[in-house]
Amino acid sequence: MSDSLPVGFRYASVAAAIKTRAGAKDLTLVVSDRPASAAGVYTQNQVVAAPVVLCRGRTPMADARAVVVNSGNANACTGVRGMQDAQRMCQVAAEAISQHSPAGQAVRSDQLLVMSTGVIGRFLPMEKIEPGIKAAAEQLATGENAFHDAADGILTTDKGRKVTCRTMQTEGRTIRIAGMAKGAGMIGPNMATMLCCVLTDAPLSADQAQQLLKRAADKSFNNISVEGHTSTNDTMLLLANGAAGGEPLAGGALEEFAENLEAMCIELAKQIPADGEGATHLIEVDVRGASSDSDARQIAQTVACSNLVKSAVFGCDPNWGRIVSAAGYAGVPIDLSRLELQLNGLLLFQCGEPVAFDAKAASQAIRDQHLTHIQLIVGDGPGQCRHWTSDLTLDYVRFNSEYTT
Amino acid sequence: MSDSLPVGFRYASVAAAIKTRAGAKDLTLVVSDRPASAAGVYTQNQVVAAPVVLCRGRTPMADARAVVVNSGNANACTGVRGMQDAQRMCQVAAEAISQHSPAGQAVRSDQLLVMSTGVIGRFLPMEKIEPGIKAAAEQLATGENAFHDAADGILTTDKGRKVTCRTMQTEGRTIRIAGMAKGAGMIGPNMATMLCCVLTDAPLSADQAQQLLKRAADKSFNNISVEGHTSTNDTMLLLANGAAGGEPLAGGALEEFAENLEAMCIELAKQIPADGEGATHLIEVDVRGASSDSDARQIAQTVACSNLVKSAVFGCDPNWGRIVSAAGYAGVPIDLSRLELQLNGLLLFQCGEPVAFDAKAASQAIRDQHLTHIQLIVGDGPGQCRHWTSDLTLDYVRFNSEYTT
Repeated sequence: MSDSLPVGFRYASVAAAIKTRAGAKDLTLVVSDRPASAAGVYTQNQVVAAPVVLCRGRTPMADARAVVVNSGNANACTGVRGMQDAQRMCQVAAEAISQHSPAGQAVRSDQLLVMSTGVIGRFLPMEKIEPGIKAAAEQLATGENAFHDAADGILTTDKGRKVTCRTMQTEGRTIRIAGMAKGAGMIGPNMATMLCCVLTDAPLSADQAQQLLKRAADKSFNNISVEGHTSTNDTMLLLANGAAGGEPLAGGALEEFAENLEAMCIELAKQIPADGEGATHLIEVDVRGASSDSDARQIAQTVACSNLVKSAVFGCDPNWGRIVSAAGYAGVPIDLSRLELQLNGLLLFQCGEPVAFDAKAASQAIRDQHLTHIQLIVGDGPGQCRHWTSDLTLDYVRFNSEYTT
Repeated sequence: MSDSLPVGFRYASVAAAIKTRAGAKDLTLVVSDRPASAAGVYTQNQVVAAPVVLCRGRTPMADARAVVVNSGNANACTGVRGMQDAQRMCQVAAEAISQHSPAGQAVRSDQLLVMSTGVIGRFLPMEKIEPGIKAAAEQLATGENAFHDAADGILTTDKGRKVTCRTMQTEGRTIRIAGMAKGAGMIGPNMATMLCCVLTDAPLSADQAQQLLKRAADKSFNNISVEGHTSTNDTMLLLANGAAGGEPLAGGALEEFAENLEAMCIELAKQIPADGEGATHLIEVDVRGASSDSDARQIAQTVACSNLVKSAVFGCDPNWGRIVSAAGYAGVPIDLSRLELQLNGLLLFQCGEPVAFDAKAASQAIRDQHLTHIQLIVGDGPGQCRHWTSDLTLDYVRFNSEYTT
């Protein structure tokens, strides 16, 4: 993986005791050794955490230098003090990174971006966070180990690390993109929120970065769900530091980069519901033939958020009635007489009537695979969408009903 | 209860072996001995069952005579044959009721309404339904026992019978209203859909009946959820046969009737999430201060449909962050700095910041009561809404993940 890591970034993560689990990494720094174009895409919840407010006000920006991330506390619903704490994280990180950077590369506080994830409604333990930031700055390093440490440090209820990377050759340059993400459930005590940080050494303007990130998010992180509860903290950042050299990407090279970024974000995004709290299946809902992409998205999302569909998949039950009826209440016109449903490639419903099928074999197919593929053709329009979610399991309810406040 | 039953209605229910459980009542008749004004409110799902299509085409109507209901099979997603079966149910019921009615009261097929609930995507077993209808017609009777039999016969996964009734005195007349409902989950094999039939001996025109029913539904059955999956079969009927005598209600008497109907429907509707599949709590989400009732409804519904909120209640966890954040993604403008949250009367969040509270006592209060009351004040507007839902429990997932197809 080291070869695919973008040039000019350093990483570190330390255990600052913000999380209750002893020794768990929870304070992470990602530093670009030169000013980077930075873009952000954020939660659409109106109740937003302080770090989201701070980052929204700064991106897109042309000279970002670092991202400071804490896990274990979301700094959400924390009012004025929460904003002061988020700003203080940037100040402390800017000073600490400046002390541990190659000479002459002082970092200003307003060149920092900040992400928080974890418990909602508690003030940040700044007495742990400040020394944590300083300790992390001392350990900043390049290479796969440091990158993996950083990716581990942003996790909360996730079972596993979520990373991906790509390399592309274009116009004689090698361009590298790497991403890390976290998320398994949405919010609240002991709960997670979605964070994602994508780094590249491609030369991009801040506006380019913003457009590319928005486009990639719409095909990836905006199409995943675990239980559909929109977090207060969702943040997705792209830092492009141009270390690959040359002029900002344009034309075919830019399009190629955009496609790589999108594919990479999809790969990363799918890891979230695949690791959804208590999940035993990743469900892909693939809607085609809608009048528009947004209609298709509406249908895919409604099917994906149906507890009845999700618990049927957990039970390996090829229960097409729940899928078809969910499509019916998505609030988008559908023509039942044209509706076609395939589950793991098996035709179950066509032209408004059930199709005879081997229920035992269909059930076994769900049982045998981690991925359950639901394909709904709703007409002959050009609109399509793929949405990924997890199944609804006993462990999900166990996990989320434990007394945590 | 007998005294409160409206005059001029007869009831019967028999076990026709449509349900797999031996001896379970599953074929029900409700007959008015004179033409009744009938109104209907139906599912907003675009995928609708045949009986919904049939009833929608007939209501409001001035001369309804009976409702025939089967449980155990929803007659949904059954295409042309499903429509033929629904019509056939009406024909058979009209003939059978005519044979067992006081002389000269022949019932026409187009005076029938029909409701079905149960498994989706299977054709009705007409060879069981037709003799069932005939057997029920032979047993038609007035009185509490017959009414309760009918209410039992429409149940599916419900644990208990859902009935209510009221009597009002107005302008020298006694007017009686009685209602029966069913519903515990939304759709699919072994699943339920919401059905409700309200009967009154009040004299109402068909248009009056329709307006009153719509108004009552908006405050009751349109504000309940178990998992938010809109059924293909939801049907709510009102039959007003005028047996109480006199001219159609007007003025103050009409308003008094409307208020009674609404209160009764709320009472009946709340029984559904209270008996939600696997539920251990009835949750009331009470939103006030929104700009409009529809904004308040949007917020209440979003909070009520959050799996994180519902599983927190199951775990007796006063997890206010999940509630506040759900309000934030309802898609309606809210002012976080004005938001106030009370849980079972305890203030947890105010003016954008958490309020210190005794978490143990708050948890114990959830544990001690079947009803969990969530009150959200979102501003100082006139809009308000109460929505009722059930908690998300291990038994809900167990029940809905069992292999059933």
